[in-house]
Formats: sequence, structure tokens, C-alpha cells
Amino acid sequence: MKNLRFEKQRPVAKILTIGDELLKGTVLNTNARFLGSELLRLGFKVDSQIACPDDIALIKTEFSRALAGAQLVIVTGGLGPTPDDVTRDAIADFFKVPLILSNRQLSFIQNHYKARGRKMPALVRKEALFPRNAEPLFNRCGIALGFSISAGERLVVVLPGVPVEMEKMVRELVEPRVRKKFPGLTGRLALIVKTVGISEPEVMKKLGNDFFDDPFEFGIYPMTGEVTLRLYTDCLPIKRRLERKVRARLKKFVYAYAETTLAQEIGKILKRRKKTLAVAESCTGGLLASEITGVPGSSVYFKGGITAYGNDIKEKWLDVPPDILQKKRAVSPEVALWMASRVRAKMNASFGIGITGIAGPSGAGRQKPVGLVYLAVVSPKKRKVWKEFFSGTRSQVQARAAKKALEYLWQGLRNNF
Amino acid sequence: MKNLRFEKQRPVAKILTIGDELLKGTVLNTNARFLGSELLRLGFKVDSQIACPDDIALIKTEFSRALAGAQLVIVTGGLGPTPDDVTRDAIADFFKVPLILSNRQLSFIQNHYKARGRKMPALVRKEALFPRNAEPLFNRCGIALGFSISAGERLVVVLPGVPVEMEKMVRELVEPRVRKKFPGLTGRLALIVKTVGISEPEVMKKLGNDFFDDPFEFGIYPMTGEVTLRLYTDCLPIKRRLERKVRARLKKFVYAYAETTLAQEIGKILKRRKKTLAVAESCTGGLLASEITGVPGSSVYFKGGITAYGNDIKEKWLDVPPDILQKKRAVSPEVALWMASRVRAKMNASFGIGITGIAGPSGAGRQKPVGLVYLAVVSPKKRKVWKEFFSGTRSQVQARAAKKALEYLWQGLRNNF
Repeated sequence: MKNLRFEKQRPVAKILTIGDELLKGTVLNTNARFLGSELLRLGFKVDSQIACPDDIALIKTEFSRALAGAQLVIVTGGLGPTPDDVTRDAIADFFKVPLILSNRQLSFIQNHYKARGRKMPALVRKEALFPRNAEPLFNRCGIALGFSISAGERLVVVLPGVPVEMEKMVRELVEPRVRKKFPGLTGRLALIVKTVGISEPEVMKKLGNDFFDDPFEFGIYPMTGEVTLRLYTDCLPIKRRLERKVRARLKKFVYAYAETTLAQEIGKILKRRKKTLAVAESCTGGLLASEITGVPGSSVYFKGGITAYGNDIKEKWLDVPPDILQKKRAVSPEVALWMASRVRAKMNASFGIGITGIAGPSGAGRQKPVGLVYLAVVSPKKRKVWKEFFSGTRSQVQARAAKKALEYLWQGLRNNF
Repeated sequence: MKNLRFEKQRPVAKILTIGDELLKGTVLNTNARFLGSELLRLGFKVDSQIACPDDIALIKTEFSRALAGAQLVIVTGGLGPTPDDVTRDAIADFFKVPLILSNRQLSFIQNHYKARGRKMPALVRKEALFPRNAEPLFNRCGIALGFSISAGERLVVVLPGVPVEMEKMVRELVEPRVRKKFPGLTGRLALIVKTVGISEPEVMKKLGNDFFDDPFEFGIYPMTGEVTLRLYTDCLPIKRRLERKVRARLKKFVYAYAETTLAQEIGKILKRRKKTLAVAESCTGGLLASEITGVPGSSVYFKGGITAYGNDIKEKWLDVPPDILQKKRAVSPEVALWMASRVRAKMNASFGIGITGIAGPSGAGRQKPVGLVYLAVVSPKKRKVWKEFFSGTRSQVQARAAKKALEYLWQGLRNNF
């Protein structure tokens, strides 16, 4: 879906990801994806992503070609301490400059080891080196130094390949340098729409054909139990028109117009209303609690959770009566409700969630297939239970069930459940 | 780390993935990963992966360059019915041949629509086209035709981008054609080494310089709290020698010689010894339970877990005495031990784990920085507690703490703790 009639000319960016593990298929190239969407947001046109092995000659060839065809080249990976990490050597070699030591980074690394009561291994010193023509970029989540090089009209940025380190550095160190180097760059206007409880084809249907009459860049991203829309345009009236249409057509499925998570949004609501939450999980095995406590500050509203895997734990810790477990079995609406209401009462929380189901691959019985999950939410006023079927592998069923529980809680909170 | 003196000459393969969605970061490039590992298995050396937009000129440029440098080029994506799908045009254009119609594929597509009671949209006819110099590859999971072209010593394979369709076609249609075209091709021997409790530089130091005297392909992959080695060679005596050295030098850190996870290996040991496990978590918030229950069949040995976030929950559910919480505070070795031993006793398990700490970004106090975590493991015979500091973001501290707890449990199990 592209209509570039009204689009500005955009500077070109290329992404070069280094590492044998990418070419051997050992890891997924999440860095290329992250950088693609960040550069789009900043206003670049990314016209190639190249993955290249840990090999000086190949890195130099690909880098040289990338630099010739782009205003911005971002390189990630190959900055580790081992001999196969050769990215910094390749880049210094390309520019015919020596590598020099950052004393600031070296003492940071030394302190890192000291704080752990360990001696710094000699080969780690390499991670404080950068090409003489570069500006060091200080990584504070890990020990590998990044760097950036201003080459005429062009900007080169070299970052470690560890995703959390790279992502933090892009947002904190690279973005300001990019904005400075390309002062005329205007990011595209972005409309972010986070929806839950609706599938990708349903979103498309609800948006309708006339939604695409305006020229804009359209991205639809299905994830576990969620669909995110990211719409980009250079034109404010178009952005406003799109927003109005989205609000009218997807209203009850939108939980945020920003990059956030459902667990985070639920946290905000609970905090604002001074309410608390407790969860009792069986088949999701702690995943729901883990998603809730992944949010900073969740201790304000999250009382705690219990993973009641065995029936004995359900009986002893959640007072599920043995006869209900016997007659209705563990995977039943009755047990889900019992779990939600007992964990709520016993942890003295405003809301309780209970989940019981069959995550698979084994454990299915007659009339109880893998993927069958009962979800219960109990509030001070009401109790509600849902029967769901989730497809996929064990971890997919677990992730979908945990997300669905958050969806029902969010709906409940919105409707003053 | 590569020393190819004694390696067979491997044919070079390049992977070209087409699609705007890849460059905008809309989707993860799982196809590149799948093809990387399949081609490694088949015996190729993959020396680049390129992602390229839906643009005839750019596709032709990248394809031409790939073909010049490789014996095998695999292209995926851009074979759909919409006007932005231009891969087949670009390839036909490159070879200066027209596109011709596969009647067999056309009737397959017509039947596909007929079976669903729908009329075939006119633009779908495009999906039965292939370049005149190509052999059609019939896709039976979807409607886009793939094709392969034998170009002198080289082989070109063009496949649809939908992962399930592409993967099935690779295994059923591409592999036999590749084997026929490259009759001498043999797959590599792999040595997989999963270690825990040792850092990447420490692994390198223990392996020593003489480890690299033999020619083989070396890959070292640090993950949260773990390091994986993947070594590839063509020569069985070399593989055996490497294995002996790894066994001697990394012995106490190796938890498996296979693609597996620490939680899975712990599960196998517990199952074999008919032992059970229960966990009490504070700062990891359910993540440890979630990792344990991510393993299929974990219900056999995992009794359950509790996320005791608030102090009231620690008191009420884990009987932590209020005066200990007052005097020693929640983040203390005493509370970690109390949590581990009470959850073990109350859930009637053989082993108990307790974790309490400060995941951050807030919650730090005097002498208690973000990243401070106490981990306790209690067995029928012993109780042990460790003080740790983890760096990074909230989710990194949580992930590292959970992995460390698994590491200590694994060590305990190995030493008959």
C-alpha cells in the first residue's frame, strides 16, 4: 500500500548486521527489525539490510558498498571480546586509521569486573577500542564500546549486537547524533494504534477500503493476542483524518495510541484507581505474574501470584474443595473461578484472576483438547469465567492464555466491572 | 575464528529476501533464519543474506550481484498477486526472458477458489506465471508458483515468502534439486556445547590457544547467564578431538551437548530421580516458575510456585516472621532462605528455591542497589544462599536472576546437594 505522490524525498539508510550466527540461522535477526522500524520513524528510507559473517574482508566489501549508497549506515554486532569479533578492525581498516583506547570505557569495564569480585580477562580490553576517526558511544548496559563516524555527508554508527544494549544506545545516543547530522530531517508523523481482542483480517475489514484513499504508509503487526497498527505520513491533516477513522472504526479494541504494553496500561489504571491484583495460574505456570511484574513499579498494585500446578497445591493453597476437583476436574470453569476468588481473598486484592487449562503437548483428555483454557476474573462486585481454545505450541498456548487474561481484566476495568 | 586449511571447499549460497515489510521492521525475517540453518545442514557456506524492497531495479541489482558471487541463490518473497509483488518480473527481466503461464498451476488456483465457492480474482492469474528459462516448483500450501533456474554451474531458486509454504517447498522440492545439482555435497559435523555459570571470555581462556590448532568453524553465543558453543567440521577425528578438549577444559560448566535448555535438563534429572521442585519468587515475579513450566511434562516434577511480591504475602503465605522482615528487610539472605524452605515444606517438594532482590529501576536503598539479589536453594539435606549483583534493565535483572537460580539448582543436583 504505497502512494508516494505527497511524500518527501527521504535520506537513504542501510543496515549491516554482522555475525556468523545470523548466516547459520542460529539466531533471529531482531536487530534488523528494530533498526528498520526506528529508522522509518526517524524519517529515513531503508533500502537494504545485509547480514554478513564475522570476516574482515567480507565486512569491508559490504560496508564500502553500503556507504556508497546511503547517507546513514548502521552496523551492529561483532564488537565482542573474542577473536571472531572483527567488526571494529574491519571498519578501522576501511578508513585506514588505527584503533585507539578509550580510558573512560576501560575503567568502566575494570569497575564492572571489580564490583563482581573478578579480575578482568586480558582479551576484554579490546572492548574499549575504537577507530581514531570515531566518536566513542558509551554503552552502559554492557561492556562493548560503540562508536560513530562522520564521513563527509554521511554518518556511520557501529553498535554492539546484544539487542538490549543496542536498543538503548539507539534511543539515547544515536538518535540525537542522527538529528544533529541531518538537521532538516523530519520524522514521519506516526499514528500508533495498539489493539487487543481482534484479529488482523477483522481489523482490515473494520478499517474498510476508503481508509486507504489517503496517501500514507501502512503497517499492521499481529503479535500474541494483539494487533498493532503503525501509520506514517508527512501530512498533519492526513494523520488527523486517519486518527478519526481509527477511533470511529476500532474504538472498543484500542487500548492505547502509543508504544506501550497491555500490562503497562492495566498497571496505570490500577494505580490511578488505587486497586490491587492477585493471580492464580495453572497452565500458564507463572507467565501471567511474570508479565505483570515486568512492569516497573508493579509492586504498588500487584499483591502476588500462585502457580498451582498440582491438584494438591490447588487444594491446600487455594482451598479448592477436593470434590470439585474430583467431579469437575482441574480444567473446568468451577476451578478457574475458585482459583480467582480465593487468590483475591487470601491475598487481600481488589481483583483476582484464575487460569486453568491444557497447554500441551500432552495432558489432553476426552472432550478436553490441548489448548482448552478457562479464565476467570473476580472483582469486588462480580465473578466471570470464559472458555477459550488456543492453537499452537505449548509456549504459544501459554502466551495466548496469559494475554487473554489481561484482555479480560482490561475490559473489566474499562467497564467498571 | 576460522581456519579453512583443511576444510572442504564449500559451495557458497546467498539468500535474498524480498519485501518492504522486512525493511520497515514490520515482520521478523524468519525465512532468512530458516534458510540459513537448512543450507548449513546441506553443506553450503552462506556468506550473505540481503533484504531488499519490492522494487524491480533494486531486486535486479542485488540478484545480479548475488548470482556473481555464489553457486546457489535462494530468493523468497514478492510472488503475491498485488502490483507491489514484482520478484518474478525482476528475475525474468534479469535473464531477458518472458514470463509464461503454467496451465497446471492455473487450474490448481481455479480449483482452489472453486472449492471455496468463490470466483478467482483476475489479478491472481499472475501467480501461475514463471520465467521461460525456469522449471516451475508447485506450491501446494498456497497459490503462488515458485521456480528454479539452472544457470550454468549455478542454481537459482525463487520461492513464495509465506513461511509455511516456503519451508515445505524447501524440504520437498528444493532439497532434491540441490542434491542433484551439487552431487558431491556432504553436510557438516556439528558439536554443540551448552554451558552455564561461565562468561564468554572465561570460556575462551579455558579453551586455550591450542584449541584452535585444528581447522574448524567456531561459533560462541552468549545468552542470558549462558554461553553456547557451536563447532562445525568436515572431519570426524577433528570433531572427536574437539569434544575431548571441551570435556576436559569446560567440564563443570557443560550442562548438555545438544540443543536444549537448562530448565529442560533440570527437568530430566528431577524426573529420573523422582524428585520435585517448588519455588518462591519476589523480584523475578513468576519468571522462574514460567521458565520451569515452559518445559513440556514439567507437571511431573514441578509442584508449584508463589510470587510473594508484598511483605504481607511473604508473611501470610510463606510464614516469614514479621520481625525478620523488620530487622533484616525483605531483600536479605534470611528471607531468601525462609522463602525457599517454607515453599518446599508447604508444597511438599524435594527442592525449594527462594529469590528476593531489587529488579529496579526504583526500590534501591542504602547498601541495597538495583540488581542486588539473594538466591536460596534448599534440599532435603542442605540449605544454601547466595548474594548476587546483576546489571542491566529490570527485565535483564529478572532474567539473569531466574537463570542463576536454575544454575544453582543444577549444580546442586549434580553434586547430590
